[in-house]
Amino acid sequence: MSELWFTEKQTEHFGITIRVNQTLHTEQTEFQKLDMVETEEWGNMLLLDGMVMTTVRDEFVYHEMVSHVPLFTHPHPEKILVVGGGDGGVIREVIKHPSVQKAVLVDIDGKVIEYSKKFLPEIAGKLDDPRVNVQVDDGFMHIANSENEYDVIIVDSTEPVGPAVNLFTKGFYAGIAKALKEDGIFVAQTDNPWFKADLIQNVFRDVKEIFPITHLYTANIPTYPSGLWTFTIGSKKYDPLKVDESRFTELETKYYTKELHFAAFVLPKFVKDIIGE
Amino acid sequence: MSELWFTEKQTEHFGITIRVNQTLHTEQTEFQKLDMVETEEWGNMLLLDGMVMTTVRDEFVYHEMVSHVPLFTHPHPEKILVVGGGDGGVIREVIKHPSVQKAVLVDIDGKVIEYSKKFLPEIAGKLDDPRVNVQVDDGFMHIANSENEYDVIIVDSTEPVGPAVNLFTKGFYAGIAKALKEDGIFVAQTDNPWFKADLIQNVFRDVKEIFPITHLYTANIPTYPSGLWTFTIGSKKYDPLKVDESRFTELETKYYTKELHFAAFVLPKFVKDIIGE
Repeated sequence: MSELWFTEKQTEHFGITIRVNQTLHTEQTEFQKLDMVETEEWGNMLLLDGMVMTTVRDEFVYHEMVSHVPLFTHPHPEKILVVGGGDGGVIREVIKHPSVQKAVLVDIDGKVIEYSKKFLPEIAGKLDDPRVNVQVDDGFMHIANSENEYDVIIVDSTEPVGPAVNLFTKGFYAGIAKALKEDGIFVAQTDNPWFKADLIQNVFRDVKEIFPITHLYTANIPTYPSGLWTFTIGSKKYDPLKVDESRFTELETKYYTKELHFAAFVLPKFVKDIIGE
Repeated sequence: MSELWFTEKQTEHFGITIRVNQTLHTEQTEFQKLDMVETEEWGNMLLLDGMVMTTVRDEFVYHEMVSHVPLFTHPHPEKILVVGGGDGGVIREVIKHPSVQKAVLVDIDGKVIEYSKKFLPEIAGKLDDPRVNVQVDDGFMHIANSENEYDVIIVDSTEPVGPAVNLFTKGFYAGIAKALKEDGIFVAQTDNPWFKADLIQNVFRDVKEIFPITHLYTANIPTYPSGLWTFTIGSKKYDPLKVDESRFTELETKYYTKELHFAAFVLPKFVKDIIGE
């Protein structure tokens, strides 16, 4: 048949377009539109509500950077919670750390987990690890019901539309602080500074009011809007900028390095301006 | 009329798409296809041979990073050569440095200069500065005819197709070394590591064989392929990683900071692997 191109309008006036070999699965789940497609450039790709969530070729950037920065900052991360992240990529990175004894994944949409296992095995393949506990549930409620329980919480959500809208509220960050142990750390993906400056500014302000140590860091993700993604880290005790050299053990990575751990926090001036630093 | 969208296929199977309000000018010059369009998301935008060269909204990243890294590395840059760069953005940044006495711009295509002055005044506005000497000429030949003349040479070329093909050859880098003074520095834009790993690898190897100090650094440019752009720097004497703190004077920038000067050289692991570091 003719060429198929998927186009994501990342803003009203700008987008990316990706050649699609075939659609592997498409479904309106209870929560969102789910498409799994095979692309030539990026390998298999998961779309939720028409937005690129992850691709086999570039997923390593996001998953390594959202995981290893907090897990190397914490001196002995044992119990980890991942909110969202049904594709399993964060879990795969988290359990690379030998100190991790239990990793709980709470995704509201079981279909994301099901079809990631089927079509993204390179990403989802560690969801069956014995240290991993997968729950199909509301992450907001899971947080609300947890207290003093986790060393690290990673919020791997979609954009603040649809099921993830509660995950960008100050109440949610307060709940996270409660769910963390007294020396816990949390990270959330917080979109890009070119098109979502307001979101970054608001989240950073909210997190900073709750956590004594708050920083923003970035990574390059080609299939995400602008290619420059931000992560907001809130920590009760350990500063990601003051991690001792001896803490960095060897892990197999394709993006993260211990030098980049620090460099990722050095922000372009216009991004510093967004968060008032 | 209906919506117009310009799509650049950045690879055979991937691209960006940008809504265009109107075409301001379109012309087949002696050297390339030139389009100047007005976009909603990025402001006015220059295309050469169908590739985005610069947009009013994100041009500052490229122009600051290709200019200030070498100019702050050199302790007293006085005479600068820009090869290509007819839009004038590099010149605008270069002459922010008070030490600069003369900045020569050699672009092979006078039409780029003419229409940048007309439609990109925010970028091209400093081409008439008394310290600037604009020459419509072949940069390769200008380099071949120069000896021991420049403190800094910046190669702001298009991709290695069309008129710029000679600007990615080892002979050209050897010519640059000859055209530089004995403590000179040069920088070239060297595309992106996601789709052009071979190009980066080859240029880096060639430059390293000629210059004792060779490094790669990156910046995020949303309208360029993958959003992650690389620059290769070759230096005879001064190391960009060993710039003394006192060298950094205040300049008005939107991306570059003295902290980012160093952080930009900290590469993702897969990029380090490309250049064998």
